Parts: sequence; structure tokens; C-alpha cells
Amino acid sequence: MTDEGGAGFDTLGELESAGAKRADRSAWAYVEGGAGEEVTLAANRRAFARRTLRTRVLAGIAELDLSTTILGSPVRSPFFVAPTAYHGALHPDAEGGTARAAARAGILAVFSTLSSLSLEEIAESRPTGPRWFQLYLQPDFAATRKLVERAERAGYGALVLTADVPVLGARDRQAEAGFAIESSVPIGNGPEVVPPARAPTRTRTGYVLRADGAASWEILDRLREVSRLPIVVKGILTGADALEAVRHGARAILVSNHGGRQLDRAPASLDALEEVVAAVGSRAEVYLDGGVRRGSDVLIALASGARAVGLGRPVLWALAAGGEAGVARLFRLLDEELATALALTGCARVREVSEAVIGTKSDPP
Amino acid sequence: MTDEGGAGFDTLGELESAGAKRADRSAWAYVEGGAGEEVTLAANRRAFARRTLRTRVLAGIAELDLSTTILGSPVRSPFFVAPTAYHGALHPDAEGGTARAAARAGILAVFSTLSSLSLEEIAESRPTGPRWFQLYLQPDFAATRKLVERAERAGYGALVLTADVPVLGARDRQAEAGFAIESSVPIGNGPEVVPPARAPTRTRTGYVLRADGAASWEILDRLREVSRLPIVVKGILTGADALEAVRHGARAILVSNHGGRQLDRAPASLDALEEVVAAVGSRAEVYLDGGVRRGSDVLIALASGARAVGLGRPVLWALAAGGEAGVARLFRLLDEELATALALTGCARVREVSEAVIGTKSDPP
Amino acid sequence: MTDEGGAGFDTLGELESAGAKRADRSAWAYVEGGAGEEVTLAANRRAFARRTLRTRVLAGIAELDLSTTILGSPVRSPFFVAPTAYHGALHPDAEGGTARAAARAGILAVFSTLSSLSLEEIAESRPTGPRWFQLYLQPDFAATRKLVERAERAGYGALVLTADVPVLGARDRQAEAGFAIESSVPIGNGPEVVPPARAPTRTRTGYVLRADGAASWEILDRLREVSRLPIVVKGILTGADALEAVRHGARAILVSNHGGRQLDRAPASLDALEEVVAAVGSRAEVYLDGGVRRGSDVLIALASGARAVGLGRPVLWALAAGGEAGVARLFRLLDEELATALALTGCARVREVSEAVIGTKSDPP
Amino acid sequence: MTDEGGAGFDTLGELESAGAKRADRSAWAYVEGGAGEEVTLAANRRAFARRTLRTRVLAGIAELDLSTTILGSPVRSPFFVAPTAYHGALHPDAEGGTARAAARAGILAVFSTLSSLSLEEIAESRPTGPRWFQLYLQPDFAATRKLVERAERAGYGALVLTADVPVLGARDRQAEAGFAIESSVPIGNGPEVVPPARAPTRTRTGYVLRADGAASWEILDRLREVSRLPIVVKGILTGADALEAVRHGARAILVSNHGGRQLDRAPASLDALEEVVAAVGSRAEVYLDGGVRRGSDVLIALASGARAVGLGRPVLWALAAGGEAGVARLFRLLDEELATALALTGCARVREVSEAVIGTKSDPP
Repeated sequence: MTDEGGAGFDTLGELESAGAKRADRSAWAYVEGGAGEEVTLAANRRAFARRTLRTRVLAGIAELDLSTTILGSPVRSPFFVAPTAYHGALHPDAEGGTARAAARAGILAVFSTLSSLSLEEIAESRPTGPRWFQLYLQPDFAATRKLVERAERAGYGALVLTADVPVLGARDRQAEAGFAIESSVPIGNGPEVVPPARAPTRTRTGYVLRADGAASWEILDRLREVSRLPIVVKGILTGADALEAVRHGARAILVSNHGGRQLDRAPASLDALEEVVAAVGSRAEVYLDGGVRRGSDVLIALASGARAVGLGRPVLWALAAGGEAGVARLFRLLDEELATALALTGCARVREVSEAVIGTKSDPP
Repeated sequence: MTDEGGAGFDTLGELESAGAKRADRSAWAYVEGGAGEEVTLAANRRAFARRTLRTRVLAGIAELDLSTTILGSPVRSPFFVAPTAYHGALHPDAEGGTARAAARAGILAVFSTLSSLSLEEIAESRPTGPRWFQLYLQPDFAATRKLVERAERAGYGALVLTADVPVLGARDRQAEAGFAIESSVPIGNGPEVVPPARAPTRTRTGYVLRADGAASWEILDRLREVSRLPIVVKGILTGADALEAVRHGARAILVSNHGGRQLDRAPASLDALEEVVAAVGSRAEVYLDGGVRRGSDVLIALASGARAVGLGRPVLWALAAGGEAGVARLFRLLDEELATALALTGCARVREVSEAVIGTKSDPP
Repeated sequence: MTDEGGAGFDTLGELESAGAKRADRSAWAYVEGGAGEEVTLAANRRAFARRTLRTRVLAGIAELDLSTTILGSPVRSPFFVAPTAYHGALHPDAEGGTARAAARAGILAVFSTLSSLSLEEIAESRPTGPRWFQLYLQPDFAATRKLVERAERAGYGALVLTADVPVLGARDRQAEAGFAIESSVPIGNGPEVVPPARAPTRTRTGYVLRADGAASWEILDRLREVSRLPIVVKGILTGADALEAVRHGARAILVSNHGGRQLDRAPASLDALEEVVAAVGSRAEVYLDGGVRRGSDVLIALASGARAVGLGRPVLWALAAGGEAGVARLFRLLDEELATALALTGCARVREVSEAVIGTKSDPP
Repeated sequence: MTDEGGAGFDTLGELESAGAKRADRSAWAYVEGGAGEEVTLAANRRAFARRTLRTRVLAGIAELDLSTTILGSPVRSPFFVAPTAYHGALHPDAEGGTARAAARAGILAVFSTLSSLSLEEIAESRPTGPRWFQLYLQPDFAATRKLVERAERAGYGALVLTADVPVLGARDRQAEAGFAIESSVPIGNGPEVVPPARAPTRTRTGYVLRADGAASWEILDRLREVSRLPIVVKGILTGADALEAVRHGARAILVSNHGGRQLDRAPASLDALEEVVAAVGSRAEVYLDGGVRRGSDVLIALASGARAVGLGRPVLWALAAGGEAGVARLFRLLDEELATALALTGCARVREVSEAVIGTKSDPP
């Protein structure tokens, strides 16, 4: 499939509405829904709308350089595919389409333990370019180790440990639409892969978490013992946790509230970013996902201290709308928007964006 | 009826919409409506949405302990059934269903003077576990005393004196739907029980309140003379009143604006909680009701100083939706959500929740 | 017509919706509309919703005294009929119905220069009780003087000089509905009475105001020369203007933005009240109109420094809904709500309400 | 066509809705749409709604003087026609209708490089009165120079250099409606005129801007070499850029975010005005466009430091609604509203409006 296949979509809104039309209703509830009353889901967007960017003019910029490095890997753009599960529920191209589109765009892509294709199949779809593996801990560490070894063998460049799912959040919209992640979609990495627990288990005296949900910071040390891959911790929203991660050898922090799908009342990712950046300083790279939709959002996040930003739902919208070509179209639109936003704020290079482009906060309409 | 009877409901939203469908229209207006323009009703919810919780990760928690004590009685969870009237208007199980479901969940339940079943019938439905009696003062103290003695005899563990209804608030939605509490529903505690006055009585020169509405703090002393039951004062929203209550022997304060049904313009319960907690210190337990819907709300209230929180409308939704089984389902959902929220904020034990889990306030979307 | 005639209405909302149904569409646009985009109209309501009232309990209050005095006249309640034009456009009872209902309620009523009945006819409808005359200046002072003399002769107790209509504001809703105040309704005080100019007059070099619109503070001195009636200045929103009024002999200030019908972007009346009260101190009485709908609003305004509050649109709603009986019903509902609000905030007497009943401002939902 | 032709429209809202009805759907999307999610578009309006004006009364004003000068040219009113493209897409009168209506109103009009009529045709429509030329730089400076020379020859009084369009913003609404500015409408100034680039051009390593998009402040010096016309820089939102403009000889600054069509997340024009005014002081005149709809908006902008304000969309609404007569009607309505707003705030002369008329900011409803 070629880039032209996605050219029918001129805007992100067209990708989203085409995706909604083509996707299965319950899969769409899985894509769009968040936890509880979706306050955090909405807050992710509102946090961007509250920031303003300072327009600058006649800055004499001819070339716009969107490239940067992420843990040393050069990428053409500072946005990446954040890990999301079950691409196959949205389009037969599944993660293969996402991987190829990301490769063509020259950006990093992170694939989930709960991918519809196996991690090896994904690797075949994308033999070159940065590709990371998102890890859900397994109840049994031997199983976790096996996943890590497979990822390392298949050429994944880093482990993104999801730390904010000791159990799943209460995903009402998904539940009401009848999307059961345990059963709806086969897990490409094999039936032996265990998804996170749906709820804590009631006992006679209280509740208990499964072993994977009960993990502590020492899990980072154990992972580093079994793999030489750099570790990125995903799901951190406080400076204190970011420092713990660094102390236990994490090379990067992905500030995230899991797209508003875990703790409904967690702060917006963007609102938490500043605390994490201040705590971590230069000891680790800091990324963000949650609410990034437009080129201006990428610029705001970068100016607020993120080195790169992940895209979650938009990738699924685009995949549902047009498979690989849809995702490629998304990346092209976002690229152009980011280049435009750089031009309009007088920034020539992504790597030099600073907080000087951020204006006073305002109350979004 | 078994727990499975309520298993068709996966979310609070499903309980509410099923309740709306099954309940009589005017009874539903009674359940959902508040006073005046329902500004306070909405503020109760918005106060929770303004708070954020600090997600913590990899905290190494295996067991989640939701139990606590309320006035010394052990309970499995820190939420309780707040007193509401006329359960029989919503489901034939009436307060019996609520009582049994609460007993199975191991939580405290408070029953209203205006229950559809008599307090003795409710006691039979629930021979064990903490059960309190909510008291509406009667115009004649002898009648009040008789109610108190019946409650004490039937094994109720505390008197919850409703202090914020010297007369009923202007409940427009209920009035417009034609729900007249004086006539619609028989009062289980007998026809001699007098509900609060609908309005002050006009005289030639002004307005007068009935004797029960004109009560002063000395009523606590009189109640303590006629009963050895501990007294909880419900409906307090200021530190000054909380201190008065303590001075007159109250053992606990229930911060409440009566679910937004009394003074439309009263502050959100949660916004008033901090003032009360600061005033009372360790001299009395402090509870809250008003706007609690989700596990995260329970956690926010606890972190803001409440020892336990009451559930009003959700119990009526669940009762209308499925009788005892519906209420049992509600408690289970809430239990799981609270356990999940504890896990996601790195709290192992309800009793150790502190304000450190609360983040900066934000403007809810 | 008796009080019972209005008893079909249980709430203010019912009066408003019945009024909307019974009134002529263009007259209703006149009632409900404001200037421009109606930002100030909405702000009047929102200012009340932003305030909270401090609930107090067990205050030991048996009697609620709503009475006060307004410029020395005793009234049963601290709300009054604010002057509005053309009652006859809403109901055949016209100002006669309003006057009789106000008399029965024992409250002050202010009647407009642009009333549908003549001021003498209104006076006959209400031989006793406080009754004031709202004065629109006439282009010719002799005509103004004639109106003043008629009012004095007919027993009106004060002149309420409308100061904020040098020309009419841009009343879009009214214009779009085709309600032309110059032609739609006969003016009861005679065809010689000239309503305010619809717009400034364009000249070759700019715009000019008619003589009545060009009046200065000296007009108060001239009015005091021709009449012994006390003067109330209506339409003041700043401390500086309030002081001017006092310097020129005004006995009272009516803080008002003309119900949001004049300058769209004027502050809410309630937001302006504090500045005026602070400037004036005890040198004049201060009243407020704009956005008062409920008993709690009356209490908030009083606690913010107003001695009394005027009702505009609600009177027209009630008149359209049920003529005199509708208006009487409105006053009774408001009376009961105010008495209830006093009881719920622990205030026994309107005259002793202080700012202590106001809580922290909040963001209304 | 005479003034009476537009007299069927009584309000701005009627002009807008008639325009919407008569205009082509895709042209209307071009008129109404902004960039991205239209956050900045909405912020432009909300910024005005947040300000309040201080009503003043009995100020003794008989004459209202709306006149001022703009770069020395006397005008009857302080609002002007902001440059917008393609008037011919909305009405056959095209820029000729706008020009004649502005001439009759005695106000300044600025015409776009992308006008539907040629600049010479527009000049013929309006031989007298202030008329400025808005310049889009051309990829080739010789072409820019040719445009400038034509404008000078045709009697335009100033060059308004649009500085905030190095490339077009992402105009989703317009794209979704299929309005392509490159093809839909012929450019009156000749097919050799090149509109701004739709997006940066992708290269093997990044993105590049066309030569016109890469201009720096030196372009002002070059323009001053080839023309004696005063230069106004349009699209500035920061004090730093305003100072640059002044340093390079600009005589005036037009604070503008291009009607929310360029960088979605730019601040509201009105919010940026104060920073620009403070930086520039008396070294240049400062104007504003963006969100001005009503007379009160004009007054707010003037009181916030603007010497004059531009009207964008309202002119297009009025043109679509009624051609020249529609636009004339708009100016008359706005004139009357401004005169009324002056009268209601006690200001006799536009030239003496000060920030004293601005009250405290409030949260708009």
C-alpha cells in the first residue's frame, strides 16, 4: 500500500471519523474510552488547550529540522508510536501497518506485549529503524524473562516497562460496549501471555494483587540482570517516582496516565511533566504521552521539557481509517503541522525548542 | 436473592440508567433532584472532579486492606449507606434489601426515620453488623424519645441526628414531578412519625418554625439523657458548628449538605470537609456524604480527612435497578474501584491514606 | 382574584414556563432579552452562583423576621418590585395586578414612567403601602416636572431616577423578534411621555444625545427643587458615581445594570455591589437588582450589603403566567424560600444578616 | 445601491445568518473556520467577554466624537476593514462593495493582495479616503516590488505587511469543506500573484520554507528602499517582535493572530495587546484585529491601548448578506453601538478613552 492510499484524508478529524465509521463498535469503545467518568481523559486535552504558544514573525528561517535522537537513535520527528494493544481489532494490517508507516516516516515505534501480531512478525515488517518493546510484567518472572529475551533477539532497542497497571482501571465505556480484552482479540505473542488483571482479587479479609501487580522498584534491577536493553519506565506522574526509576537504572521516563485509562483523577500528563522534568534533570530522557493530537501539542510538550512525545489514539484512528496508508497519512499531517508550528514560533530546530515559546496559561473556551 | 442477580450490571452508569428506567417517574425526581437550581447538587460532584490524585507506581503492594473502624465498629470498607428515606418507593425489597446487601458487604448502614420498613423490620433483616438510626426530631420531644428508645431496643449502634432540616429546602424538581413526601409513601415507623415541615409557617408578622425545626444545641444534651447511644451530627458544614457539636457530646460529625437538597448555595461537602476536620482534630470522627460515586472519590475524601464516606443516591439507583442484588453489586463495584485506586496511588491500607495522595487542584473539563 | 388562583404554580420554573407559553412571542423576547450578546445578562445570574452560603445548624431559631424598612417605610420582606415597563403587554391585569399583589405581600413596588396604566390608575389599585415612581427624564424639563408633580400628587413615596439610559442599549433579541417599544404598547401616562432614544443621532460630524440623555448630576438638584420626594438613583455600578449621587442629595442608590439590557459588558450587579457599599457607607441606603431569582439570592445580596433587592423579570413571568394571582404566588414562594434560607443559615432577622453567612467564592458548574 | 438596501438587517446576528444562508457552503467554511481545533479562534471572542466595562452615569455628555486619525489620516470611526481575501467568493460586489461602504462610513479600509478585484479596480471604486494595501510577500522580490509599486501608483496610503504567514496554518474546517484557495477564486491582482504556501516542503532531511516564508526583519528595510509608503506590520503578538518592527522602520503594528487561522494556540489578540502596547510606547501606532464584533469590543480594545481596530469576518458576513448595502449597514450598526457604549461609560471622545473604563476581569459565562 502506498502513501497515496491515505491521501483522501486531509485532516485528523477526517481520520477519526472514518475510523469510527469503519471500526467495530465495541473496538471503538476500547479505543476512545477511558477510566471511570473520563475526567483524566478530558484533562489530557484540556491541559494543552490551556497553554498558549508565542507566535514569532520574520525570524528568517528557511529550513526546519524536525529530527532528534531518542536514547541515541536518530529519528526524523520527535513524535513516536506509543504502545497500544490489539491493532488487529482495528484493521487487518494490524501492527504491521503501523510498523511500516512508522518506518517510512523515520520515527520510533513502540509495540505492546498485547500486540495482535507477534513481536517477531512485527520485527519482520520493519527490519530497520528504532523499534521498542513495551513490557507487561507476567505473573511469573520466568515468563517475563522469556518475553524480554524474545524482544532482544528480535532486535528491539529498548524495554518500555508499563508501571501503572498493577490492575486495570475501571473502564466503563469499554465494559458497557462489551469489549473484553481477555477474549475479544488473540494475543500475537502467544496464548501463554497473560494480560493485566481486570480487578484485585477479593479474599476473606480484603483484596490481593497478582504477583505482576505487586512488583516493586527491584523489578528494574532484575530486568537489567536478564537483558542489556535500556529500560524506559512508562506511567510515571511524580518527581519522586521518576527519581526511583533513575536510581534503579532507568534510562528514560515516559510521563503518562495511560491515556486516562487507569486512575480517573490522575493529573493530565502535561501537567505532571514539569514536576518530572525538574526532578530528573539530565539524568534520564523524559517523554510524554496523553492528549497529543496536533503539531502544536508536540511543540508545547517539547517546550515543557519532553524530548519526544507518544501518539496513542490517533494511530488507532488512522489505522482503522486506512490501515498502513492511514497511519502514514497521520504522520505526514503531523509532520507538516509541527513544521508549521516551528515556523510560526520562530524555531528552526526541534532540538532547540525551549520554554520561551510558551506564553501565559489561559482558560480554554 | 444472590449476588449473581446483580451481575448483569458492569458499571455504576448501568445501575443508574436501569434504575431510571424501572423507577416511577416522580420517585425518580425525588431521588435525583436537589434544592432550587441544583447548584449545590452539581457542586458536590465538581468538587471531586477538581481534585487530582497522585499516581504512584511499583510500590510493591500485594495486599490491599480496605477495612477500618467507625466509632469502634470494624467494617470491611470505609463507605457506608447514608440515610435516605422511602426505599420502598424504589423497590419492593425496600430497606430490607439495602440492609442485607450492606451486611454481606460488611459495611455500616444508616437507616432513616422515614424508612419504608419499620426500624424493627430492618433490624430483623440484619441482625448483625453495624447499623445506625438516623433521627429526625419530632415536634414533641416525647415522640422523639420514643423513636430513640425503639432504635436502642432494636440494636442500632448510634443516633445520627439530622441537624440541617429545620424545614425542607425548596425541592423544585420533586415538586414539579408531583412527588409529595407527605402522602406518596407510607412511613414504616408508623403514622405517628412526623416528617420535617415543608415550609415555615406564615404568621401575621413573619414566619415561624415548628418546634423540631427550632431546636438548639441543647437537644444533644437531652438526647444523651435519654439514650446511651453515641450521637453523630449530620449536616454540618462549618468548623464552628462542628465544635459546638463536640462541646455537646457528639462523637462524630457527618459533613453533608443533604445531597444538595436543602440550601442551594451551600458549599460542596468536600469543600467544607477541610474546615471541619481542622476544627475538630481528634476530638470526633468526621465523615462525609455528598457526591461520592466512585472509588477514587472515596479515596479523595479519605485523603482530605474523612474517616468514612456515605453513599446516598447510588444506593437508591442500585436498589431501583435490582433490589438487594443491585445494591450488593454496587458495593462490589465500589470495593473493587477503591482497591484499584489504592493500588494505583501506592496505598496499602485505607487507614493509612494521607493527604499526600492529593495533587494540585485543577479546573475540571 | 384570590391567592388560590396562583396556587397551581409550585415553583419559579413553572411560573416562567407558563409565562412563556401565554405571552406573545415578541413581548417575551422583550422580557427575556438583554443587550448585545447577553454576556452581562448571564453574568448577573452567574455572580450569585459563584457565592456560597454558610449553612448553620441547631441555631435555636423559632421565629423568622423578614421585615425591614426601606427609606423608613416598613415592609414585610426585603425584596421589592423593580420598575419594568409595559406590564400590559403581558397580562390584562397590567400594573394593577402587580400593585395589588405587592400590597397583599406588604412589599414595596416601583412603577415605571412607561407603565401601561397611568400612575394615577396604579395608585388607585394600591391606596396604601410603599409605592415609588421610576422616572425617565423627558427631553424637556417641564415635562419631567409635570411627571414628578403627578407622582407626588398621587402619593408615590420616592422618585427612582433611571440614570443608565442616556440612550437604549442594543437589544438584539428584542429587535430580532420585532418588539418595538415605541409602537407596540400604549404608554399609560399619556402620549406626551417620551421613551428613551433608541440610538444616538448621527450628525455630519459624529453623534449627539437627546437632552434627557445628556443630563448631568445637576439634574438631581433640579429635581429636588421641584419635589420634596426623596430621590433614589438607579443604574449605578461604581463607587465614584454613588458618591456623586450622595453629594447631589440622593437618599439611596439602586445598583443595577438594567437587567443586562444596557451595556453588554457591564459587570454583574452583585459584583459591583461591594464597591458601591464601601464607597457610600451609611450615607445612603443601597439596593440591588439584576439576577435575583431565589430566596438564597436575596440572602446573598443582603449579606453583601444591600438593604433590599428588586425583582424584574420574575414579576413579568408571574404576571404573564397568572396575572395578579401569579404575582402573588411568586411573592409567597420567594418569601418562603427566604425564610427557609434564613433558617438554614442561622439568621433570625433580615435586618441582622451580615457577610458572615457568605462562604468562599467558587466556580459554578 | 443605497443605505436602505441594508436596512432589513437590524442586528449583527441577522447579517451573519443571512450571510450563512446566501454564501456557498465551502466559501462559508473559509470565512468562519480557523486553524486546527479553533481554540485561538474562540479565545479571540472569549478575551473580550472576560473584560468588563465600567458603566458611568449622568456624565453630562451631549456630543459623541467617534473620529480619530490613523497614521495621520482622519477617519470618522476607529474601526477599519481588516484585510481579508476573496470578497468575490461571497458577493458579486466583491471588494468594490466593501470599498464603497467604507468610503461612505468615512473609515479606513485595507485590501488584500489576494483580493478578487485588482487593486486598481478597488481604487477606482474609492477614489478618496484612506485605503491601504495588505502585502503578501512574493517568492521573488521583484514581484513583491511590482505589487508595491502598483499600490503606490494607485494611491494606497500604506503597506500592511502580513508577517505571520510564512506558510498557511492547518485550516481543517476549510479543508474538510473542500475550499482550496489556490483554485477556487481568481486573484484579481493577476495570475502572477502567488498566495502563501499551503505547507512547508518536505526534503530528504526535513522541511524548507519558500523564500517569502523565510523572510527576516531586513525585508522591512528593503521595502522602505523601494517605496515611500509607511509600513504597518500585521501579525505581531509579542513585545519583542513589535520592537523589532519599530527598529526596522515600521510606523504601526497590527496585533493579530490572523483571525485564529494560523497558529492554533496563539493567544487571543486582545490578551497580546497589552504586551505590545507596553513595549512600543509612543514609537508606533498599535492596532488590533481578532474577535471584534460589537461596539463594546471596540471600546475595550481602545481602552486597552489600541488606536484602532480591524473587522474581519463581520465584513464578510455583511457582504455575503447584502453586498455593499450589507456592509454599509454593518458599519452603521457598529457606529451606533460604539456611540452608545461611549455614552454609557461616560466617554465623550474616542481619542480620550483610557483604561479607566475597564473593570475587573471576570470569568465569562
